[in-house]
Amino acid sequence: MTVSVEFHFDFGSPNAYLSHLVIPAIEARTGVTFEYIPVLLGGIFKATGNASPAVTLRGIKNKGEYGNIEMQRFLTRHSIDNFAFNPHFPVNTLQLMRGAVYAKTTGFLERYVDEVYRHMWAEPKKMDDQDVVKSAFAESDLPVDELMAGMQDPEVKQALITNTERSVEIGSFGSPTFFVNGEIFFGKDKLRDVEEEIMMLLLH
Amino acid sequence: MTVSVEFHFDFGSPNAYLSHLVIPAIEARTGVTFEYIPVLLGGIFKATGNASPAVTLRGIKNKGEYGNIEMQRFLTRHSIDNFAFNPHFPVNTLQLMRGAVYAKTTGFLERYVDEVYRHMWAEPKKMDDQDVVKSAFAESDLPVDELMAGMQDPEVKQALITNTERSVEIGSFGSPTFFVNGEIFFGKDKLRDVEEEIMMLLLH
Repeated sequence: MTVSVEFHFDFGSPNAYLSHLVIPAIEARTGVTFEYIPVLLGGIFKATGNASPAVTLRGIKNKGEYGNIEMQRFLTRHSIDNFAFNPHFPVNTLQLMRGAVYAKTTGFLERYVDEVYRHMWAEPKKMDDQDVVKSAFAESDLPVDELMAGMQDPEVKQALITNTERSVEIGSFGSPTFFVNGEIFFGKDKLRDVEEEIMMLLLH
Repeated sequence: MTVSVEFHFDFGSPNAYLSHLVIPAIEARTGVTFEYIPVLLGGIFKATGNASPAVTLRGIKNKGEYGNIEMQRFLTRHSIDNFAFNPHFPVNTLQLMRGAVYAKTTGFLERYVDEVYRHMWAEPKKMDDQDVVKSAFAESDLPVDELMAGMQDPEVKQALITNTERSVEIGSFGSPTFFVNGEIFFGKDKLRDVEEEIMMLLLH
């Protein structure tokens, strides 16, 4: 049985970053590689009428605090020490996500994702400031000019829109979202279920 | 190490009912008994500014559908076949929860909870209609007159308020909520974490 796993990600979501840190261990245990699909979370929210927890939890007692407790549990469980909440949150990720589409087409998505996530959520910077982005790319030894040009490519722009529309069509409403042979799983806390679903499919 | 587990429940929440069905297996595996704490979910919502998913998910594409997918997964995983969504939802549970406080004080909470949950979510009835409630109690061989009187007892009424206020004080914002030695876990999908936390505490 072939198992296809998609990870629909946006650099703007801290929970997508935390998932990204845990995915390699799941890939190692299952032998299945996650396909990273760049999507625009803002576009998903617009298409579904959903909003980020930063918005929906405003003014609600205890619920945000519980989210923080669960985040801390996740960090402890997976021994994550390279996470720092981005002080510029929310960061507009349109250019970064277009860069991800370009990097994927051109064949260096993995390194791009690792580096951009580091600049977003490990050594956080204001990654919707063009100068900050350029020096971050340079520091990461990514092709700065090529990426900045790629972000302006109409085909790249359209591909990000298409990815986002397809994501909503198959069930997305937030981030992070996973699809295991088309079955949706939402949230970093569902990564255990994702792994079990992969294992179950591999055994049948 | 003594492990105390509290289950803060309201009969109005289908996810609390589904948790209730799974708790006996966790009790059997861990040897720890869950203490059932009657709370008024409407009071928790009022105190925290939160609302039920039926309200918060209104108009949001895909998110409610995902909730249904996860509910179906939970039913499948735990082989639950005695669940039927209550067609009268939302049911005002004030009297039923006062009854739970009375039943707990008087020593028949376990049977009361099993029976009322059955009338709410297995063979669903309009359990905020006094006549329906009375015949449901009678069918279940519960002490109808005693319960109806107990619901009017000022101490019972106050105890439900006190339980609800304490629940919010220690972190509740919705249902179902669990506390393992004071640590909060929210949602039926966290029952696995609840069990792991109990086991971890028992081993230390």
